[in-house]
Amino acid sequence: MTDSINASLDAKFLQDWMELSSFGAVEGTGGVERQAASVADGNQRKWFATLLESHGFRVERDAIGNQFGLLEMAPGQPFVLTGSHLDSQPTAGRFDGAYGVLASAHACFRAARKFRDDPSLKPFNLAVVNWFNEEGSRFKPSMMGSSVFTGKLSLEEALATTDSRGVSVHEALDSLQERGIFDGVDVSSYAEIHVQQGRSMEEDGITIGLVDAVWGAHKFELRITGEQAHSGSTLMEERSDALLGAARLVVAARELVDQFDPGLLHTACGYMNIYPNSPVVVASEVQLLFDLRSPSSDVLSAAYKKFTEAIHEVGRRDRVDILTVAEHSWEQNPYPEDGVELARGVANELGLTSERVMTIAGHDSTNMKDKVPTVMLFVPSVDGISHNVNEYTRDEDLIAGVDHLAGVLLRLGGSLV
Amino acid sequence: MTDSINASLDAKFLQDWMELSSFGAVEGTGGVERQAASVADGNQRKWFATLLESHGFRVERDAIGNQFGLLEMAPGQPFVLTGSHLDSQPTAGRFDGAYGVLASAHACFRAARKFRDDPSLKPFNLAVVNWFNEEGSRFKPSMMGSSVFTGKLSLEEALATTDSRGVSVHEALDSLQERGIFDGVDVSSYAEIHVQQGRSMEEDGITIGLVDAVWGAHKFELRITGEQAHSGSTLMEERSDALLGAARLVVAARELVDQFDPGLLHTACGYMNIYPNSPVVVASEVQLLFDLRSPSSDVLSAAYKKFTEAIHEVGRRDRVDILTVAEHSWEQNPYPEDGVELARGVANELGLTSERVMTIAGHDSTNMKDKVPTVMLFVPSVDGISHNVNEYTRDEDLIAGVDHLAGVLLRLGGSLV
Repeated sequence: MTDSINASLDAKFLQDWMELSSFGAVEGTGGVERQAASVADGNQRKWFATLLESHGFRVERDAIGNQFGLLEMAPGQPFVLTGSHLDSQPTAGRFDGAYGVLASAHACFRAARKFRDDPSLKPFNLAVVNWFNEEGSRFKPSMMGSSVFTGKLSLEEALATTDSRGVSVHEALDSLQERGIFDGVDVSSYAEIHVQQGRSMEEDGITIGLVDAVWGAHKFELRITGEQAHSGSTLMEERSDALLGAARLVVAARELVDQFDPGLLHTACGYMNIYPNSPVVVASEVQLLFDLRSPSSDVLSAAYKKFTEAIHEVGRRDRVDILTVAEHSWEQNPYPEDGVELARGVANELGLTSERVMTIAGHDSTNMKDKVPTVMLFVPSVDGISHNVNEYTRDEDLIAGVDHLAGVLLRLGGSLV
Repeated sequence: MTDSINASLDAKFLQDWMELSSFGAVEGTGGVERQAASVADGNQRKWFATLLESHGFRVERDAIGNQFGLLEMAPGQPFVLTGSHLDSQPTAGRFDGAYGVLASAHACFRAARKFRDDPSLKPFNLAVVNWFNEEGSRFKPSMMGSSVFTGKLSLEEALATTDSRGVSVHEALDSLQERGIFDGVDVSSYAEIHVQQGRSMEEDGITIGLVDAVWGAHKFELRITGEQAHSGSTLMEERSDALLGAARLVVAARELVDQFDPGLLHTACGYMNIYPNSPVVVASEVQLLFDLRSPSSDVLSAAYKKFTEAIHEVGRRDRVDILTVAEHSWEQNPYPEDGVELARGVANELGLTSERVMTIAGHDSTNMKDKVPTVMLFVPSVDGISHNVNEYTRDEDLIAGVDHLAGVLLRLGGSLV
């Protein structure tokens, strides 16, 4: 391609990126709010379908609302799939997920143009995906669409999940006409690109992150049960205060971090549902979510053991019942080495700096890599700000990522080696 | 009165009590849920108005939804007012407030009968009041109706207050047709009866509690501001976690109690509003309410000082901003001694055991006693359970309270001495 054609493609990407960033824009910030199956999510989905169709893609939706754009250039063959998610957290950045979806579309546009420009290239089938509800803010769990697609979560369970107002996934998708009957595609390989949710690439001056592993994680939902009482008159020693128990565990989770070397353990509680949550009433029930994450399996299991002890100690001391309602965990877990090396080759060829990085957060690719050959890529994020309206990645890095992803797709499809 | 007439009045009270307890009944429990200006509150208000009218009362509503039943037997003279509140906390007991309102009505019925039976008694004006929103669970602050009535809170501010869904007091009252234009009554004295929210009377075998003081209290609303971030990937030392700050303060408030002699300090946090309250997101803001209460002014001010230090320490250590949005406090505070002695005389005359008690919780009488001669009475509560569906007071104690309150009203009105 000539430089002028590249400049035009880049300009088109940035134009589309501006349009996409307008959906659910949070006034006075660069951020967005478009939680899964919200009105803003519905609007961006329609916009995205129109964009894909204008480039010759066929757009389909499956039963959990995953949105696919198909470019069938080798009828009957499996597809190279690429994508991420358009849904966001509340008052979130505009890059998380959405960049990966639009970059995937534009990388496919570039690959398709290659085939038109060079008839000697062997064409293959390309598909873009916008996975439903990666964030898990409105409907839990996160990575819902890719979990159903990979058989890790049942469709029935996912559709029946309700938000805090009692609206089910089924109802929310139907209200947007985004629940479909598409059977899905036969996938030969998968690629995803995302902004790094950390600052290491930014600090090291690296443009392409070659994701080689995901941190181990242990996530659980606890239900703490106390006894509703008057919070003024009830004697302190007779209280069974679920919110006090919850607070002790939030503090315990934070203090756990300092028992390990710096950087080896992340802990968090960001969600708590308190009942009756009323002034002058001792809380009778708190549901809350905890995450423990580590790049080391030993640290993760030691931290889990210590946290379990803290749960027992709080239950005993504060006379509350603490039940583990749900938990799931994954080991520190590699991405396929072939994919890392393939992506490194593309970066070298394009003259882009690259380095191996781990992802602390899970992605839809964390599901896909267990099923098919998968490549996971990062572009840098200024100051590593994430899940915040101030999240920011420079235009040149966004564009480099699209270029790089296009190269990865052509190699995954076997048109280039 | 003869025993058979008394038995019939008692039976009528218990029948009305059963009917009243059916509004907002929580299935499978003896409790109720009828928060201020809810549908259940509207229904019980209509029932109560009909009851009063059937006994010859004129029913009026003022601009903040206080419901008055007027029995004008001495035209142009001021009124002896008696009442409490029908609104409840979520999943609350059926006695808190509601007993006081129905006991007031029946005490007035008994007083009115006295006048009919004994033409030598000098009649006076009697009024029953159902104060709006004593609990403060749906609309803050608590004791809203009596605070507006006594000029401690402006009507405009109270009407503009919104619940968590953005519905204002003004709108909620209008939807029930419970916002009126009544100017209020000229009150000569006030009496209120309530179930004790503690177990001391039960343990001491006492039927009538002569409330002689209210504990001191310091209540405040804090807003903790952190920085929204990805709760997996953000480095621990870079986080500014509002929920962690909130949890540290909940623990600090509990630990404060142990720095004083047993029973001298109660602390509580029962309400927390977390934003964005989403999995995998560090909270950027938490609003929460704290109460410190003590029967000793010295303890209360020492505890307040220590808690203020804890606020500064948490802000510094966890890098969060902590703002005191609102606070109000009252000193340990006596009820009029004349009223205590008047109530003791009535108990002696009726052969009921009585003792002086303090109230830890505030009541509408806490507002009224600053304006007019006021008597505050308790009946015992089994195990002192409060703000809980298992709250329970025996029928014989309920009835003794009605009898006693009727005697108090006749003395406050000057018909008996």
